Amino acid sequence: MAGIMAAAGLHAQQNVGFRAGNVTSPVINADNTVTFNVHAPKAHKVVVLGDWVNGILPLKEGEGGIWSGTTSVLPSELYTYRVNIDGITGLDPANPFTKRDVGTTFSYFYVNGGYADYYQVHDVPHGTVTQTWYHSDATGSDRRLSVYLPPSYDGKKKFPVLYLLHGSGGDETAWIELGNVPRIMDNLIAKGEAVPMIVVMPNGNIGATAAPGETSDNLAFRPVMSNLIPSNYKNGTYEASFQEIISFTEKNFAAARGKKNRAVAGLSMGGFHSLYIAINHPASFDYVGLFSAGLVPQLTSDSPMYSNVDEKLKAMHVKLFWIAIGKDDFLYDINQEFRVKLDKLGVPYEYHESARGHLWCNWRQYLLLFAPRLFK
Amino acid sequence: MAGIMAAAGLHAQQNVGFRAGNVTSPVINADNTVTFNVHAPKAHKVVVLGDWVNGILPLKEGEGGIWSGTTSVLPSELYTYRVNIDGITGLDPANPFTKRDVGTTFSYFYVNGGYADYYQVHDVPHGTVTQTWYHSDATGSDRRLSVYLPPSYDGKKKFPVLYLLHGSGGDETAWIELGNVPRIMDNLIAKGEAVPMIVVMPNGNIGATAAPGETSDNLAFRPVMSNLIPSNYKNGTYEASFQEIISFTEKNFAAARGKKNRAVAGLSMGGFHSLYIAINHPASFDYVGLFSAGLVPQLTSDSPMYSNVDEKLKAMHVKLFWIAIGKDDFLYDINQEFRVKLDKLGVPYEYHESARGHLWCNWRQYLLLFAPRLFK
Repeated sequence: MAGIMAAAGLHAQQNVGFRAGNVTSPVINADNTVTFNVHAPKAHKVVVLGDWVNGILPLKEGEGGIWSGTTSVLPSELYTYRVNIDGITGLDPANPFTKRDVGTTFSYFYVNGGYADYYQVHDVPHGTVTQTWYHSDATGSDRRLSVYLPPSYDGKKKFPVLYLLHGSGGDETAWIELGNVPRIMDNLIAKGEAVPMIVVMPNGNIGATAAPGETSDNLAFRPVMSNLIPSNYKNGTYEASFQEIISFTEKNFAAARGKKNRAVAGLSMGGFHSLYIAINHPASFDYVGLFSAGLVPQLTSDSPMYSNVDEKLKAMHVKLFWIAIGKDDFLYDINQEFRVKLDKLGVPYEYHESARGHLWCNWRQYLLLFAPRLFK
Repeated sequence: MAGIMAAAGLHAQQNVGFRAGNVTSPVINADNTVTFNVHAPKAHKVVVLGDWVNGILPLKEGEGGIWSGTTSVLPSELYTYRVNIDGITGLDPANPFTKRDVGTTFSYFYVNGGYADYYQVHDVPHGTVTQTWYHSDATGSDRRLSVYLPPSYDGKKKFPVLYLLHGSGGDETAWIELGNVPRIMDNLIAKGEAVPMIVVMPNGNIGATAAPGETSDNLAFRPVMSNLIPSNYKNGTYEASFQEIISFTEKNFAAARGKKNRAVAGLSMGGFHSLYIAINHPASFDYVGLFSAGLVPQLTSDSPMYSNVDEKLKAMHVKLFWIAIGKDDFLYDINQEFRVKLDKLGVPYEYHESARGHLWCNWRQYLLLFAPRLFK
C-alpha cells in the first residue's frame, strides 16, 4: 500500500504517473483463448465476468499475488468484461481500454479471425465522425446527434444516408462507442462490400437532449436503465418529428435525397422507433432494419403514429425490410409474433436469426450484414 | 456474491442490467465539501485518491458495509479520483462518469461556483466536434485530429483558428476529454468573453497516427507514459510539418487566413511544440501560448527547427506571447530560466503564475484565460 500511496501522492502533485505495470491483461492467445492476470495479493476471490457465453471465469492465485485464468476458445468478437475482487466489481486494472454501456464502464478486448476483424482499425481510408446539434421544434430544444461521413466525403459529392437508432439506455454515442460504426463502415467501404454512405445516429430518448454528462444536467443525470426508459417512450413524438433529423442532415451534409437514398434501422427501442418511423413516412425510406426490435404487441397510445398499423404496413413498399433477432433474446417470441402478422398481411421481409441474446455482439453483426445490402 | 453472480449471469445473457444501486457517490455538498460512499462490506481499508490538494482520503466503515468520507471544502474544479480497496485501485463503483488520462481511467466530478462552471454544459448554443484524418507527407501516413467548430459555424463565414496541442502521454482526444474544450469554448462564446473561433487539436506524437486504440495497432499499443514519449520527440518533424495541419484546416473548414487569424498554444510537450512551431513560422501566428511548457534548456538535435533560437525569438513579432506555469510544477525552474533568457533578448511576453503543478486543472484554467485574449 505504501507504494501505491506514494504514487498517488505523486499523481496528486504532478501528472507524471501511468508507468507500465508488470502485469499484462488480457492476453489473447494464439488459439483464441484469452488469459486474464490480476495482481491482487490480498484478495480471497477473483472472478472475471464477461459477455461471452458462460462468461464467468474464477481466477486462481499464483506467484506474487497474481490471479490468472484462461477462457475456452472464443469466437471472434469484441468482448466486454469486468473483474470482481472480493465482491467489488470493477475494471481490469491492467487493461487501459474501456467502453461505457449505459451506466457501467467495462474493460474490453478483441478476438480476431472473424467478425471482430471488421470492428478494428485497419490501414484503410478513414471516415470522419462529427457530433453536432440540431434544433427540434417538436421538443423545443437543441438535440445532439453523431454523424459518420465516409472517407471520400468532400462536401460536394452526395451520399445516401443510413439513420441508425440506439436502444433504451443508449444515446447518440452508443453506435459509435459500442457499435464501432466508424470502423465497420471504413472496413466495409474499403473492401467494396458496402457503398460509401453517411450514417446519422440521433438521440432517441425524447425526454433527453444528449448523452448523460452532455446536457445541462451534467453529472446530476445518472445513466441507469430505470432513468433512461423515457416516460414518453410511446407518445410518438420522436417518430412524428423524425423529418427534423432528415431535414437537418440534408441541409448540413452532402446527403443524397429521395426514398432510394435513405435507410432507417435500430436496435431494441431503436427497432421499435425504426418500424414506426418507416410506416408513418412511407415515401421516405427504401430500407428498413429491425435489430432485436423492442416491439410492443398491445400498444396503447393516443398518438396517430401507432394507429392503423396493419394498413400502414401493407402500404409500405420498400426494397428491403430486414428483421433480425437472436435465438436467446427475451424479445424473440414477440418478434416471431410480428413475423406471423407480416405473413398474414402479405408484407414481404427478410429474416435473420442469430445465436445469443439482446447483446451488442448481435447488433454489430446485424449492421455488418445489413449495411452491404443498402443503396445497391 | 451470489447476487452479483446472478446479475453478471443475466448480463452475460441479456443486456438489461445497469439498475441504480442504493449508494450515491460522490455527493457534492452545499458547502463544496464532497462525500464519497463505497459499498465494500468485505474490505479492510478503503481510500479515495484524488487530484485535489492533499487528495488522499481514508474512508470509514459505517452501516451495511458502506465506507464513507468527506473532503474539506474544495475550490471549484473538475476533479478526477480513484478508490483503493484493500490495495486494488479502481473506479468509484457508484459513479458512472469516467475520463481516461494516458492509460488510466478515473472517476470524476465537478465542484461548482468558479472555474468548473465553464467546464460544464449550459443551455447555450453548442459547437460541433469533429474527428477526422489528414494526410501527412512528412510522416507518409494519415493522421487523426479533433476540430471544434463554434455554434455559429455555417461553412460560409470564416473564423480564426486556435491550434491547441496536447502533452506527452496525450493525443488528439486529450483537450476534448480532459480539457473540456467544447464546453469551455461554448461558454466563453455565449458570454461574449471569447470571439467565436475554430479550435484544432492534432496528434503531436509524431511516431503515432492517432490515439491509442484508434490506429491499426488497435489494443496492442498500450498507453503508458513510457510508450508515449516519442523516440523522435526532438527530431523537429512535427514542427517542420505543421503547415500540413494549417493547410488541411484552411482547405476543409471555413478558416480565416493570415497571421492575425491564427494562434498556437500547448501544454507540456505541446508547449515545447508551440514554441518551436511559432519561431520557425514567424509569418503564421499572432498569438502563442506556452502552458507548463516542457522546455529543454540544453537541446541537442540535428534539426534546423532548434537552431538559432535566440535569433528566431528576437525575430518573432506577435500580438501575445503568453507563458503560464504553476508554482509547484516540476518544470517551474526551467520556465523561469526561459523568462530570464527572454528578458535578456528583449522579447516581450506576458507571464501568468498559478498555484499547483503539472495538472489538467491548470491547463483548463490557462485556456480559460488565454482564449479570451485571442483575435481581438
